Amino acid sequence: MAKRTVFFVSDQTGVTAETLGHSLLTQFDGAQYQSASMPFIATTGQAEEVVRRINAAARESALRPIVFATLVDDKVRAIVQGADALVLDFFAAFLGPLENELNLPSAHASGRAHGMADLATYTARINATNYALANDDGAGARDYASADVVLVGVSRSGKTPTCVYLALQYGIYAANYPLADEDLDTGRLPPVLAPHRSKLFGLTIRPERLQQIRNERRPGSRYASLQQCEYELRAAAALFARVGLPFLDTTECSIEEIASRILYRQHLQRRVRL
Amino acid sequence: MAKRTVFFVSDQTGVTAETLGHSLLTQFDGAQYQSASMPFIATTGQAEEVVRRINAAARESALRPIVFATLVDDKVRAIVQGADALVLDFFAAFLGPLENELNLPSAHASGRAHGMADLATYTARINATNYALANDDGAGARDYASADVVLVGVSRSGKTPTCVYLALQYGIYAANYPLADEDLDTGRLPPVLAPHRSKLFGLTIRPERLQQIRNERRPGSRYASLQQCEYELRAAAALFARVGLPFLDTTECSIEEIASRILYRQHLQRRVRL
Repeated sequence: MAKRTVFFVSDQTGVTAETLGHSLLTQFDGAQYQSASMPFIATTGQAEEVVRRINAAARESALRPIVFATLVDDKVRAIVQGADALVLDFFAAFLGPLENELNLPSAHASGRAHGMADLATYTARINATNYALANDDGAGARDYASADVVLVGVSRSGKTPTCVYLALQYGIYAANYPLADEDLDTGRLPPVLAPHRSKLFGLTIRPERLQQIRNERRPGSRYASLQQCEYELRAAAALFARVGLPFLDTTECSIEEIASRILYRQHLQRRVRL
Repeated sequence: MAKRTVFFVSDQTGVTAETLGHSLLTQFDGAQYQSASMPFIATTGQAEEVVRRINAAARESALRPIVFATLVDDKVRAIVQGADALVLDFFAAFLGPLENELNLPSAHASGRAHGMADLATYTARINATNYALANDDGAGARDYASADVVLVGVSRSGKTPTCVYLALQYGIYAANYPLADEDLDTGRLPPVLAPHRSKLFGLTIRPERLQQIRNERRPGSRYASLQQCEYELRAAAALFARVGLPFLDTTECSIEEIASRILYRQHLQRRVRL
């Protein structure tokens, strides 16, 4: 079956074009793609090279390529829009209506799309990331006093990547505490967490999924057995219920979604401005 | 001066709506906003509540609110589009042209926008994040053999957040090695890095910016003095030049941009599919 080529073309990192293009394409079942990212396309010469690559892909396939673009510069965008492809440019679609509404001209200047390089934002993200790394895993003395949120759950329930994502995306100080056998056996909140109850948030996951994830790490181990996963998750659920912790089942969630739901439910104030 | 309210409304996390909306708004100088995120709007009842909040903001200000939306469900979207605001919905703008081009109907189903929850992708991101945490900072034995890239630079040049971002966004195994005084004094590549030269990538930064960042961490210290920053960066630059390492100045870059440029220049293969 012929595959269509999807291009993500951006004058910046291309992450926005990729995210949005992927969101749109997941709405279509059964279509097959191969994809190519072309970031940092800032000059007309680079745009012409992009068009050559798109047109080459068009010639090689019966299916016209699709291009998701975030190109701010009018000249660069006009060149890419001349390619033999369906070109969907996010700036082209929305800058006009915004100019009308704001009654302002837009800068049409690239290099602003991630205006995140200002010092306060950068520092907030670095500090929160360093905090997440220093307070990952409950061993040793942890700085829970500085935490915005402390994620609690069994091993491999999604705590670490969620903490790191909360730090990078929102500047949130997220620590995590893995529930160990002794916590699960006693069914009590670990004493080190007791003073920070309002910051605690539980993560759970379905046993079959946890088994899969653990089995990738330690194949065939007791740690990865369904029985062990079921025991730990049941004990964790009982603990969350007894203490009255809010919690989230991460089984069907991406890391982005886990982080966003925690932010929302805990009413956390982000340190990185929109 | 009257502030306009900007809403980010999504049936998912809202990250895409926020990113794109922010990119668009940075094209307009001088306009002032306050913003509100409304994620996980999935039902018509929730959409009606959103409209009430938007209309309340419209009544309180002479300036009509702006709504950036990523709403897949037609009914939910139609309700939000009825608000007293400029509503820019990404799915509304692009699903139609894509349906025509692909000659397929779209699912119009929410919950797909971050279709990243499949096990392979999730595992790749978790494993890469754990790798980044375990191989952050050069102290002790590090698993450079498994690295896709090893970032080398002085303290606070941006290595750690970049490694973590590469892991979360792309599933890349990124280690980092902070250049210590002895490395800078000898001007030689640390022996532990020598076998992995093709994976090494240098980060540098302007001394004034490094001074600012370090001063937030240890105010008034020798570590944060301009003289020390200048010395370390000069020695690092000399080392990069002598060994022939590719490098990037991170001064004007967001973490996203640093990561994306490294991916591109090192031809790294992402483990997380688009």
